Parts: sequence; structure tokens; C-alpha cells
Amino acid sequence: MFLLRRTVDNARQLAPSLRAMSSKGPLVDLTVDNDGVAIMTLQRPPVNSLNLDLLKEISNSLDEVAKNKSKGMILTSSSPTVFSAGLDIMEMYKPDMKRAEEFWTTLQDVWFKLFGSNFATAAAINGHAPAGGCLLSMSCEYRAMVGGKFTIGLNETALGIVAPKWFMDTMCQTIPVREAEFALTTARMFTVDEALKVGLIDEIASDKSDAINKCKGFLKKFDRIPPLARSLTKQKIRDAPIKNLQKNRQADVQEFLGFLKNPKVQQSLEMYIQALKQKAAK
Amino acid sequence: MFLLRRTVDNARQLAPSLRAMSSKGPLVDLTVDNDGVAIMTLQRPPVNSLNLDLLKEISNSLDEVAKNKSKGMILTSSSPTVFSAGLDIMEMYKPDMKRAEEFWTTLQDVWFKLFGSNFATAAAINGHAPAGGCLLSMSCEYRAMVGGKFTIGLNETALGIVAPKWFMDTMCQTIPVREAEFALTTARMFTVDEALKVGLIDEIASDKSDAINKCKGFLKKFDRIPPLARSLTKQKIRDAPIKNLQKNRQADVQEFLGFLKNPKVQQSLEMYIQALKQKAAK
Amino acid sequence: MFLLRRTVDNARQLAPSLRAMSSKGPLVDLTVDNDGVAIMTLQRPPVNSLNLDLLKEISNSLDEVAKNKSKGMILTSSSPTVFSAGLDIMEMYKPDMKRAEEFWTTLQDVWFKLFGSNFATAAAINGHAPAGGCLLSMSCEYRAMVGGKFTIGLNETALGIVAPKWFMDTMCQTIPVREAEFALTTARMFTVDEALKVGLIDEIASDKSDAINKCKGFLKKFDRIPPLARSLTKQKIRDAPIKNLQKNRQADVQEFLGFLKNPKVQQSLEMYIQALKQKAAK
Repeated sequence: MFLLRRTVDNARQLAPSLRAMSSKGPLVDLTVDNDGVAIMTLQRPPVNSLNLDLLKEISNSLDEVAKNKSKGMILTSSSPTVFSAGLDIMEMYKPDMKRAEEFWTTLQDVWFKLFGSNFATAAAINGHAPAGGCLLSMSCEYRAMVGGKFTIGLNETALGIVAPKWFMDTMCQTIPVREAEFALTTARMFTVDEALKVGLIDEIASDKSDAINKCKGFLKKFDRIPPLARSLTKQKIRDAPIKNLQKNRQADVQEFLGFLKNPKVQQSLEMYIQALKQKAAK
Repeated sequence: MFLLRRTVDNARQLAPSLRAMSSKGPLVDLTVDNDGVAIMTLQRPPVNSLNLDLLKEISNSLDEVAKNKSKGMILTSSSPTVFSAGLDIMEMYKPDMKRAEEFWTTLQDVWFKLFGSNFATAAAINGHAPAGGCLLSMSCEYRAMVGGKFTIGLNETALGIVAPKWFMDTMCQTIPVREAEFALTTARMFTVDEALKVGLIDEIASDKSDAINKCKGFLKKFDRIPPLARSLTKQKIRDAPIKNLQKNRQADVQEFLGFLKNPKVQQSLEMYIQALKQKAAK
Repeated sequence: MFLLRRTVDNARQLAPSLRAMSSKGPLVDLTVDNDGVAIMTLQRPPVNSLNLDLLKEISNSLDEVAKNKSKGMILTSSSPTVFSAGLDIMEMYKPDMKRAEEFWTTLQDVWFKLFGSNFATAAAINGHAPAGGCLLSMSCEYRAMVGGKFTIGLNETALGIVAPKWFMDTMCQTIPVREAEFALTTARMFTVDEALKVGLIDEIASDKSDAINKCKGFLKKFDRIPPLARSLTKQKIRDAPIKNLQKNRQADVQEFLGFLKNPKVQQSLEMYIQALKQKAAK
């Protein structure tokens, strides 16, 4: 992962994430509805930037869902406009290396637990889902997204960042490799209609509640499917990407830390954050 | 592979397979038509359940087609409503372990010979094609399916069964991995129209004879293609799934036998068979 | 790769390549336009058959583009009807084995440099693009093709040739594996409309200049993307096919040389060339 030139130009669109550095109360709300479906709501205002604290809570919440043997889980956001803005840039700027390592390891953990979960998963995408937000939703087995002006995609290159191989693998389990290459290199943010057409999402919803209902409709398909057979089948068809990261997990951490130690990267991050501050001040 | 709870609910749709435990005469009819195309017809009434005997005959018939250097082979069924109902459950219930091992090894053989055949292959799918029936047709290079009420898919999870990795690999050579995951986990049986749309079949036929004609139309494309180049090209693009099973062949057998030895699996099978008997008695 | 029977029947369509055995002047024209985009024009009349000399010039030109840090490269042809007819058969007929080895190694080099380039690439396909011509265009990241009667595809089997695995891998990075298998085994030449539908090309252009403009439109997407992040992302998603050939490079050369040493292959080539000569004499 590399932050490079021109990031400032691209910074504007992610400006809200700068204001997202603190929070009170739990960052994840986990409830189980009458049908036995767990609803996991990300609630780190304003844009659910994935910092270490939020990732830890997601990780613990995924453990809880696994333990409670819910009928399935729906991932959504408390924000009316953003599903998740992706990784919190403040975890990367002049980082404590010990914490940075924990940050990245926790992100990997979240992916292992979500992408490889034994329970069924769906994302009710009720707002923008760039970068890490797109990753979380693609790691689920089904995606219903609220129509309108929201966008979704792995747009890391726009910020001078290279998405790790397992982000790419996750995308290639979802859409054709040629579409993934085009999207990844051009930092493509798909409109909801485009996302539906290419298969990046499965359904368009009218609002959050409709998105959750559509996710429930997907999970309902499993009422008559023996859960162990379902979960082993899921894990078998997701086996290759999981094995890949398991094998390269330590190298993947080192690649991330090496990226953070690069002075040019830190310089780019500083420029980026300055741009965010200037925008916030207006 | 694991048989689990709720299988009884799902048993009804496969009920005919219980009546399919004996047969007289050859289980496979192999003829060569005037164009030099081999027609292989499965004829183990009523639903072409794949037991050891039928699999052995298919295996031998595939050897014959390979030896006779036919222009290609079309796989079809003598039943007016079922292409093949898949693996015969009676081979798995309280099995003789020696026979069960031969059963599974023969199934692997059939796949190696069909999926990796040096002759061109097409399936004239003239009836339902669940599970193993879907596998046989996907192992061919072309699929024409009779329209109407028939369905096709790898619906193993509905019976609490996990399709082996090479079933999945075969499906992923045919349709996109995201479609395969959805279909495999939800035990999706595609209507003919759905199957065409996703690429699980190539053409819709009006009846069996039309399906065979459409398969012949596909095989006719090879009249001007040097056969060795064609067959090496086919084997090269199918190389990865073939190598995968070759490498894991023994482990795949052991996984199947371990599944049969599981008391819970045998219990599920017993419940399943009781349900079939009750249905048959009505 | 194997040349086999029936090649004569198929020879007619490639007849022009026989007349393409000499040339004067540089075989590749490389210019940089006002936008900083490199235009690489193949100009070995009449049909840009890829012989050792042309491949060497392409290889050197790719080095130049890489060195000059162009904004991107567009590959096109000086011929009004043929993008490239593919490999020059005269490099395979009664070859000097030393030269044949250099020929194949240079083809591999061209692919490594084009498919894995750090600069962005697009093909303005202004004519037929069979076999090696299709490979070159698929190795780019974007394809705009002039509409009308032109065709594109890996039609090697029609000449009794087996496309190497890395040709197949390149196609499978572009279109679904099931479409690739069908196209490769049947030697399918796609019309422009068919190519667009399956994703083998990205846009249809009205003429060469429009094709180049459409390619520029694609490259323009990268104006705001930091180039290092873009190029590392591209190389990461193309990593598997590149690693595959790197690992098997020497075996791939030996497979090609073994094919040339096969007397049956040389016999087929002779018949093919005779057919071309007879056609040219008419």
C-alpha cells in the first residue's frame, strides 16, 4: 500500500473522516430480531471510519454472533448517508508501530471472521461504501443497497493506495476479474445501478428498512437448509482466498508497516490531512 | 459431505429415487448415429439414480467412445422427466465400506473420463437434473435443455450434503463463482430460463429430439477443427480442476467414507428413507 | 502446439500472411502525442504477421515507452484491414532451432512487457485480430475496436495449433472461463458485436481515429490516479498469469520447439504454405 502524489485532489470526497476521531459509547450495536436474525449496526459517527477501536468491536461482535448461533447476520450503518468510509487514515499517520500492527492484524481478523463466517451474512448498504466499506459488504454473502446517490467501490488507487491482494480476491469472488481490474485501477465508484448490473450488489432497496427486509429475504432461503452443510459449503467455495491470506498473513502485515514507514507516504498523508482540515474549516 | 437435520422436509422432491433400486438389462445404451456421433442414454428407471452399477456402465461406455474415435458424444436419458436424479442414496445407507469406496472411486473415474475426455461432449438434458445429474451435464462441453418445468442445479445442501470441491470447481468452469456460491449454499434449482440466463445451459430445446439436434449443431462446429488440437486445448483449459482432484483423490475418498461412518449421517439417511417410503406408500 | 490435419481448409483466411515476409524501414512506429500518450503502430505490411524482427521491435518499443514515463500507450496498426494476423508461420516452417528459440522467447518477452507493463495500455483494434493479434490486444487494459466486418479471437485450433496456457490465461482475465473454453475449442472468431457482448472488447469505434480517441478516453481516467498505485494494482491483479509463465517459461519454450520438430507438424505447415501459394497465384 502506497500513498502517493495527487492525493490532495482526491481527499475532498473523504473529508468527513477527519471529524470522526472520537466517539462515546459502543461503536457497534448488536441486536437479535424476532426472527432470530442478528443486526450489527456500525455507529462510529459521522462516517464509520474503521479505526482500531471500531475494528475490535466488530471483531468481538462477530464472535458473539458465531456463539449465539443466530439464523444469520445483517451488517448495516447508523449513519443516514455512509455505510462506512473505510480505514481511518489517522491510524496510518505518524503511527505507533505497535498499534499499527494491531490495527492491521485486527482488520485481517475481521475479514477472516466475516468472509469465512459459519453463519450466513448479508449487508444492508444504506450509504456510501468506499474502500474498506466496500470490503466489509463484499465479505458478506448478499448485498442490498439503498438506491439514489450512494456509491460503492474499492477506490484505494485514488488516494495512492494499493489494495492488498485479499481485498482484490474478495472482489473477484463477487464480480468478474476483468471488471475488478478496471474498477481497481481506475478507482471506480459504482452508482447503485452500475453496481447491480455488474453484480457488485444483488438488489436495490428504497430505504434502510427495505434493505434490511431484502437481506432477511435472502437469509430466509436458509430456513430449510441444514446449517452445517450450508456453512461448510460456503467455506469450501471461499477456501482459496482464505488460505491465501492465512499463508501470507505475516508478509501482509509487514507490507503494511513498510508502507507506513515510507517518508513519502507520511508526507502524502500529512498533505491529505491538511486538505481535510482546510475543507472542514470552511 | 454431511447429511443433517431437516433432510426429511427436503426428501419429498427426490422420492422417486427409492423406487430405483433394481433394473434389468444394460443401464446405458450406447449407439452411434449416421453422422458418427455417439449417443449415450442413461436408462436406469425410473430416475437414473447413480448407483455403483450405473456408474460402472457409464465409465465403461466412456472408454468405448474414446476407443471408437467418435466425432463426439451426446449424453441423454431414457426417462421422459428426469435426466438423472443424482447419486443413489442406497449406496450411502448402512454401506459395505469396501463397496462404498468402489462407489466413490467410480464416480471420480466417471468425472475424469467425462470432464477430461479427448472427444467432444454435449448433454441433451431432457428432464430434471439435480445434484449428480447436474454434475454430469456440467462435465460436458455444451448443454441443451428441454424447456418447461424441468430444473437443474447442485442442490446438495438441501439434503444436508456438502458438494465435494470438484463438483464446485466444475460449476465454476461453467458459471461465475458468485453465482455458484449463491446456488450451492441456497441449494438453488434453476428453471430452464434461469439456467440459460446465468450460463448453466447454452440453449433451450422444445423436446428431446430438438435437444439432441442442438447438441449435434454444437459438435458440428468441430468438423473443421483438427481433433488433436481441439482435445489438447480442452484439456489445457480444464487442467486445474483435473489436477486438483488427482492430487486430492485419496483424501476425497476418505472424506466420503468418514461421512458415511458418522452415526448422525446414518440417522439422517434413515429418516430420509423412511420419509421416501411413506410417500411411496401413499 | 500442434499443426494437424484439415489445416489446408482453414488456410485461406490467413492467406495474406504469406506475402508478408519482408519489409523495409522500421516495423513499429512510436510517437508521443500532445497529451503525452504513446501511440505504437505496427507496420509490417501487409498484415503485421509477428515474425522475430517485428517482435524484437515491439519489445524494444515497449522498453522505450516504459523509460519515457508516458501517460499511457495505445497499440494500433498501419493496415486498414488487419490489426495483426498473429504469429508468422514462416518462423515455424523448417526453422533454424536457434532462431526458433529466440522467436518464442521474444514473444514471451513481449507479453511480459505488455501484459505486465507499469504504464497503462489500450488497443485501438482497427482490423482483424486473430490468434497472436488477439493476444496482443487482450494483453492491454482496454480495447476499442472498429465496427463492421472485422473479427477477433484465439482461433489457433482451426490451424491445428494449441494455444499455450498463457494465451488462455490472458483470455480468462478478459472473458469468463466458460466463454473462453467455447471460443478456444471452436476457434471462434467474434464479430465486433459479439466481442462487445462477451467483454472481449470494451467499445465499438466508427474508425481508427475514433478507436484511438476512445482509448485516450480510457487513459484519461488515470489523470487523477497516482501512477505508482495504479501500476502496482494492475500488476497485483495480473500476478497469477505472470507468475505462471515465469515458473514455466523454459518448459513453454521446449514445448514450442518440440512441436516444431514433429515431422507431422512440418508436413502440415508445408501443406498450409502450398495452399497459401496457390491462393496467392490466383
